[in-house]
Amino acid sequence: MLKKLRVGILGATGTVGQRFVQLLAEHPWFEVTALAASERSTGRTYREAVRWKLESPIPEDIGKMSVLEPKPNLDCQIIFSALDSSVAGPIEEEFARAGYAVFSNAKNHRMDEDVPILIPEVNPEHLKLIELQRAQRRWKGFIVTNGNCSTITLCMALAPLERDFGIERVLATTMQAVSGAGYPGVPSLDILGNLIPNIDGEEEKIERETKKIFGALCDKKIEPHPMTVSATTTRVAVLDGHSESVSVKLRRAASLSEIKESFRGYSSLPQELKLPTAPVHPIVLREEADRPQPRLDAHAEKGMATVVGRVRNCSVLDYKFVVLGHNTLRGAAGAAVLDAELLVAQGFWK
Amino acid sequence: MLKKLRVGILGATGTVGQRFVQLLAEHPWFEVTALAASERSTGRTYREAVRWKLESPIPEDIGKMSVLEPKPNLDCQIIFSALDSSVAGPIEEEFARAGYAVFSNAKNHRMDEDVPILIPEVNPEHLKLIELQRAQRRWKGFIVTNGNCSTITLCMALAPLERDFGIERVLATTMQAVSGAGYPGVPSLDILGNLIPNIDGEEEKIERETKKIFGALCDKKIEPHPMTVSATTTRVAVLDGHSESVSVKLRRAASLSEIKESFRGYSSLPQELKLPTAPVHPIVLREEADRPQPRLDAHAEKGMATVVGRVRNCSVLDYKFVVLGHNTLRGAAGAAVLDAELLVAQGFWK
Amino acid sequence: MLKKLRVGILGATGTVGQRFVQLLAEHPWFEVTALAASERSTGRTYREAVRWKLESPIPEDIGKMSVLEPKPNLDCQIIFSALDSSVAGPIEEEFARAGYAVFSNAKNHRMDEDVPILIPEVNPEHLKLIELQRAQRRWKGFIVTNGNCSTITLCMALAPLERDFGIERVLATTMQAVSGAGYPGVPSLDILGNLIPNIDGEEEKIERETKKIFGALCDKKIEPHPMTVSATTTRVAVLDGHSESVSVKLRRAASLSEIKESFRGYSSLPQELKLPTAPVHPIVLREEADRPQPRLDAHAEKGMATVVGRVRNCSVLDYKFVVLGHNTLRGAAGAAVLDAELLVAQGFWK
Amino acid sequence: MLKKLRVGILGATGTVGQRFVQLLAEHPWFEVTALAASERSTGRTYREAVRWKLESPIPEDIGKMSVLEPKPNLDCQIIFSALDSSVAGPIEEEFARAGYAVFSNAKNHRMDEDVPILIPEVNPEHLKLIELQRAQRRWKGFIVTNGNCSTITLCMALAPLERDFGIERVLATTMQAVSGAGYPGVPSLDILGNLIPNIDGEEEKIERETKKIFGALCDKKIEPHPMTVSATTTRVAVLDGHSESVSVKLRRAASLSEIKESFRGYSSLPQELKLPTAPVHPIVLREEADRPQPRLDAHAEKGMATVVGRVRNCSVLDYKFVVLGHNTLRGAAGAAVLDAELLVAQGFWK
Repeated sequence: MLKKLRVGILGATGTVGQRFVQLLAEHPWFEVTALAASERSTGRTYREAVRWKLESPIPEDIGKMSVLEPKPNLDCQIIFSALDSSVAGPIEEEFARAGYAVFSNAKNHRMDEDVPILIPEVNPEHLKLIELQRAQRRWKGFIVTNGNCSTITLCMALAPLERDFGIERVLATTMQAVSGAGYPGVPSLDILGNLIPNIDGEEEKIERETKKIFGALCDKKIEPHPMTVSATTTRVAVLDGHSESVSVKLRRAASLSEIKESFRGYSSLPQELKLPTAPVHPIVLREEADRPQPRLDAHAEKGMATVVGRVRNCSVLDYKFVVLGHNTLRGAAGAAVLDAELLVAQGFWK
Repeated sequence: MLKKLRVGILGATGTVGQRFVQLLAEHPWFEVTALAASERSTGRTYREAVRWKLESPIPEDIGKMSVLEPKPNLDCQIIFSALDSSVAGPIEEEFARAGYAVFSNAKNHRMDEDVPILIPEVNPEHLKLIELQRAQRRWKGFIVTNGNCSTITLCMALAPLERDFGIERVLATTMQAVSGAGYPGVPSLDILGNLIPNIDGEEEKIERETKKIFGALCDKKIEPHPMTVSATTTRVAVLDGHSESVSVKLRRAASLSEIKESFRGYSSLPQELKLPTAPVHPIVLREEADRPQPRLDAHAEKGMATVVGRVRNCSVLDYKFVVLGHNTLRGAAGAAVLDAELLVAQGFWK
Repeated sequence: MLKKLRVGILGATGTVGQRFVQLLAEHPWFEVTALAASERSTGRTYREAVRWKLESPIPEDIGKMSVLEPKPNLDCQIIFSALDSSVAGPIEEEFARAGYAVFSNAKNHRMDEDVPILIPEVNPEHLKLIELQRAQRRWKGFIVTNGNCSTITLCMALAPLERDFGIERVLATTMQAVSGAGYPGVPSLDILGNLIPNIDGEEEKIERETKKIFGALCDKKIEPHPMTVSATTTRVAVLDGHSESVSVKLRRAASLSEIKESFRGYSSLPQELKLPTAPVHPIVLREEADRPQPRLDAHAEKGMATVVGRVRNCSVLDYKFVVLGHNTLRGAAGAAVLDAELLVAQGFWK
Repeated sequence: MLKKLRVGILGATGTVGQRFVQLLAEHPWFEVTALAASERSTGRTYREAVRWKLESPIPEDIGKMSVLEPKPNLDCQIIFSALDSSVAGPIEEEFARAGYAVFSNAKNHRMDEDVPILIPEVNPEHLKLIELQRAQRRWKGFIVTNGNCSTITLCMALAPLERDFGIERVLATTMQAVSGAGYPGVPSLDILGNLIPNIDGEEEKIERETKKIFGALCDKKIEPHPMTVSATTTRVAVLDGHSESVSVKLRRAASLSEIKESFRGYSSLPQELKLPTAPVHPIVLREEADRPQPRLDAHAEKGMATVVGRVRNCSVLDYKFVVLGHNTLRGAAGAAVLDAELLVAQGFWK
C-alpha cells in the first residue's frame, strides 16, 4: 500500500471525534484530509474549535486544519462519523449516497436491516450486507456501524464463549465511565461521590445490538441470535473504561478451566490479518482477584484489548465474570477504525 | 419505660463504632455508659482517641468518656460490638458468657447454628435461638448478629417479594461505598476515578447469610431457604450507600404492578411496634428513571429505609431492580440498634 | 411577630434556588408564597420543574406550588433572587421599582454605588444606602445584594482581624466546590481527579467586593477600604464548601494568640439580635492540624458558620490561615435570608 | 558510552520505586541490576512483591528479578533510593560509605551541610559538595538528594525569574495529588469529595529546601538564598500532579511580557547536555485561562516538564501564576534519574 487512503471525520470536536483524531494522526493506511463539525465550529481551525480533553497533545498538522461543514463535498474517500445521534441519521445517509464509505459510531442506522453492526473479530461475514445495502438504496457508498460502547465490550467477552460453547442467556450490569456521555456530558454534581443507576436507552441497545451482532446472515438480513440478554446500566465516577458484571448460561456444559482457556486462546480475523489497530490479544484474561480495574486495565493494548477477570461459577446461571473495555477506543473510535481496516484488508479500495 | 438501659460499645472508635455513638447519643431507651476499643485507644478520652469522620459533631458527653478495654467488666447490660472480625470472635463470647446481651456487627458468629442473623422486619422469630444458645453454651448472656451490610440491603428488598410471591433465584451485583471498608480502609490511589471489581469474602457472605436470614426455624437451627443466590461485589467511589443491581426469579407469577405494590405496601413488626429506630417506610419505592442514588437517597428515613427503584421485567429471570441501603446505618450500626430495640419491645429487660 | 412575611423566590429551580426553598420552608418569619423561574419551568409544579439535588426531600407544600414567570406581579413582599446573572439585572430592577424588597445573590448590582453588599455581621450600616437608592431611582422597593460566595467566606474571616487590628494586605487562593457553578455546571470530565486553576471573573469579584464590604459609608456611597486584595481562584472535586488559603498583613502588630482570640471571640449584630438564621458562633476556630475540611466542617451551624483553622505566622505577610465556608448556604441563599432577617429585626416591615 | 551503568533501586515496590522501575527499564545509560525493599518483600520476585499501580505494565525482565535486602552488597554502582524516610537515613549512609553513588528521594539527608539538593537545571554547581562530603565523611561513595516534590515544582518555576530578575519573596499554596503520599497513603474516606488543608512537615520542607537549592556554594557549605518563602500545603482529590498558586516579589522591576518571556525562553544545562531524561522545554508556558490542569498537563514531556500558566500581576506582591509538576516523575523518580545523568555527563564514571 503505497498511498494512504484519504479520510474525513464528522463530529471531530467531540469526545469520540478527538479519539478519531488521536488514532488517525499517525495511521499507516489512513490520512486525515477533512474535518467537519457543527456550525459553531466551522470556519475555525481545529485547534481553535476543539475543547481538547485528551492527555496527548493535539496533533500539530490536524490542529491547523479548517473545520468544515458536514456536507458530502469533503475531500476524502472514507468517513468516520462521531456525530451526535440527534443529527447523524440523514447526514450519514447523504455521504453514503454520494459515494463515501461511512463508518459510523452513531446509533441511528445500527438496527437498519441492511446495515451491519460490525465487530471484525466477531461477525466479519456481516459485511456482505454492504452489497445489498447499496443495491437496495441505490447508493454509491455505504454505511457500516459499530455497536454501542457497552455492547462491544460485552460482545468481545461473549465471542469466545459463543464460538466454543454457545450462549443461551446473558445477564449484565454495567458500571460505565463518564467519557461515554461526551462533553459536557455528566454534570459533576451528579457523579462526584455518587452513582446513577440508569443510562437512558443504553439497556435496550445492549439487548438488541448483541443479538444482531451474533446473528446469522440469511438471505437479505441478519437473523438475531436466539440468546436472551438482560442488562442494567449504571454510571460511576470513572473517567475511561466501562466495567460489566456478566453471568452467562451456556448451551454446552464446560468446566471452569475450559472457560478460561476459551478466553485466553481467543484470536480471530483481525489478528490473523494483522490489522494495524487490532490488539494482539483481543481478550486479556487476568487471574488476580481485584482485576480488571479501569485505571489499570482500560489502556491494555492501546485501549483495544478487552480485559476479563474474576471468572468463576455462577449458581444461578453457569459462569460469571467481570469484563472491562475502553469505551472511547475499543468501544467507539477504535472500533470504527478497525472496521475500516478490515475493509481495506479485504480489498475494497484496491 | 422510666429508666434507660445501659449500653456499651466495643470498637467505638471505628467507622461503625462512630455510627453507634451517633445513633445512641440521644436514644430514648438506651444510654451509653461504656466505650471500649483496642489497646491503642484505652486510657484516653473518646474525643482524644477517635478520628471522627462524621459530619455531625462528637456528642459532648460521650467525647469526655474514657475508652476502656473490651473486657467483660463494663458497666452496662447491652453490648453493641463494632469490633473488627480479626478480634471479635472470642471477645464477644466472653461478654455473652458473662451475661451481657451482645449485638454484633462482626461476621464471626453469624453462621453459628445457634446464633440468629436478625433483621427485625424479616425474621423476628429467629430470636427463639437465643434460648437454645444460652442453654447449649451455658451462657448467662447471648449473641445476636446483624448481617453483612450488602446482605441486609438485599434482604430488605427481597422481603416483600418473598412474603408475597416466594423467591427462587437471585442474581445481584453490588456497587459498594468506601465507608464499608472502615478507616483507613480503601486507599485513595485505588478508588479515585476507578472501580475495584471484588471485595474479599463479601460474595460468600451475601450468598450464605441471605439463605439463613430467610431460613425456617426448625428444631434447633435455621434450615437455609432453598433460594439460589449469586453475587458479584464491587467497590466504587461513593462515600456512603451500597447500590445493588438485582434480578429475581419468583415462585409464583406476578405482574409488574403487583411487584411494585408489594414493595410499596411493605411493613412489618418494627413498624407495628413503632421501634424508635425503625423507618416508617422500610421500603421506599422510587419511580424516577435515575433513582436510587447514594448521595440523594442513602439518608432516607435517617438512613434506615431501603430505597428501591428501576423495577422492571428481566428477560433472563423475572424482574430486576436497583436497591440502595445505607451501609453503616441500616447496614451496620442501625441494624444492631434495631435488633436490640426489638428485644426490649418483646420484654427481655422487664 | 404574629403573621409571617410573604416571600417569593426567583430562579427557584437552580442550585441556589433549591437552597432558598430548603431554608425558607420552615422559616419562623417568612412564608414562601411565590416561586418563579425561567420559561422552561413555568406552568409546572415545582416538583415537576426542579431537578432536586439536595439530600433532604422537597418540602411537601412547596413541591405542589406552580412555578410562575419572574414578573413583578407575584404575591409577596420580599423577593429572594437566585437568578443567573445573564438575566438578573433588569428583572431585579423591575421588582424593586414595583415595590418589592429584593435580596439578590446575583452579581449584577453589587458594584452599583447605591446598592449595598450586605453581610449583617460586617457592615450593617451599609443598609443606609437603601434610602438613597430609593430616592435616586424613585423606587418603591429596593435591592440589597450579598457578595460572591468566596468573597463572603473571606470577609467573614477578615472581619474580626479588621475590627481588632486593621487589615493592610490580603493574599488568597481559593479551592472551590462544584456546587458553586450551579447545575449542570462543571462537567465531570473536567473535574474528576482534576483541578481547574481558574474560575472566570471570580478573582475580580473577590478583590473588588471585599474592599466595598469593608468600605466606609460616606455621603452618598461606599468609599472602598484601602486594603489590597489579591486572589487566585481554583475549582476542586469537592461538592459543597469553598476553602481559602489566606495570608494577611495587619495594620497593628498582634501576637498569634491575640489573632486566635480575635477569631474565637468574634460576635456581631446578628448574634446580638438572635436572627433566626444567624450562627451562634459566626467563626469556629479549629486547632487541629487537618481542619477545616469541606466534608466535615462545611455544615457547621447549619452551614452558616465560617470555619477557620491552621492559624500561624506567615514569613511574607504577617499571619496565614485556611478558611472554609458553605458556598450555597452562608455564601449564597443563607446570606440573603440573613440579610432579610436583619431588615425585619430593624423594623422595615413594622 | 558502550556499556550501561549498573543501578539498584531501594524501596523498589513503593509508589516512587515503581516510577524508578518504569523510567529505568528502557534507559539508554542505566541497567537495573538490583532491586531491594523491606523485609516483607525480600525473597520474592518483583512481580510477586509489588502492588503495581501504574497504567503501563511491569517491565517483563524486572518483574522476574528477586527483591533483595537493602544492604550494601548489591551488584550495582549507582543506587536510586525511594526508601521511606523512617528507614532511609542510615541505610543510604551505609551504601555511600561502601562506595555506591546514592541518589536519594528521601528527606533525611537533604539539609545536611555537605549534601546537595540537586536540580540539574538550577544548581549544578552544588555538586562540588560531593568531594567535600567524601573527604569529611571518609566515604568512597556519596549521597545526592533531590528536593521534595512540591519544592522541585516551585523551584523550577522560580528558576527563570531568579536568573533574570532576582527573587525577594514567595508565597505559595499547593494543591497536591494523592500519589505524593505513597501507598496505601491517603484513605479514600479522607479525600473523596474533600480537601485536607495540611500535609505534615511539607511546608517547612518547601520553605527550607527552596532557600538551599537557590543558595550560594561558599567555602564548605551552601549559604541559603535570602529570599523569604511562605507555603501552605493542601491535599486534593487528584491522582498525579501537584498544582501550586504562587505569588512572587522580584528584586528588579519587570514587565508582564518580560516575565512570560523569561518562562518561555528558559533552558539550562540538562538541555544543553541533552541528558536523556531532560525535557526539551523545562518550562511550558500556557496562555489559556484554564491551564495548567493535572489531568491534561502533568504528563507534559513525559512528566519532566513544569507547566506554568495564569501569569499575571499580583497587587500584593509583583506577579502571580499557577505551576504544575508531576510529583512522582519530575518531583521524585525522574528528578533522581536526571541527577544521576548529570553526573554521568560530567564524567564521574569515566
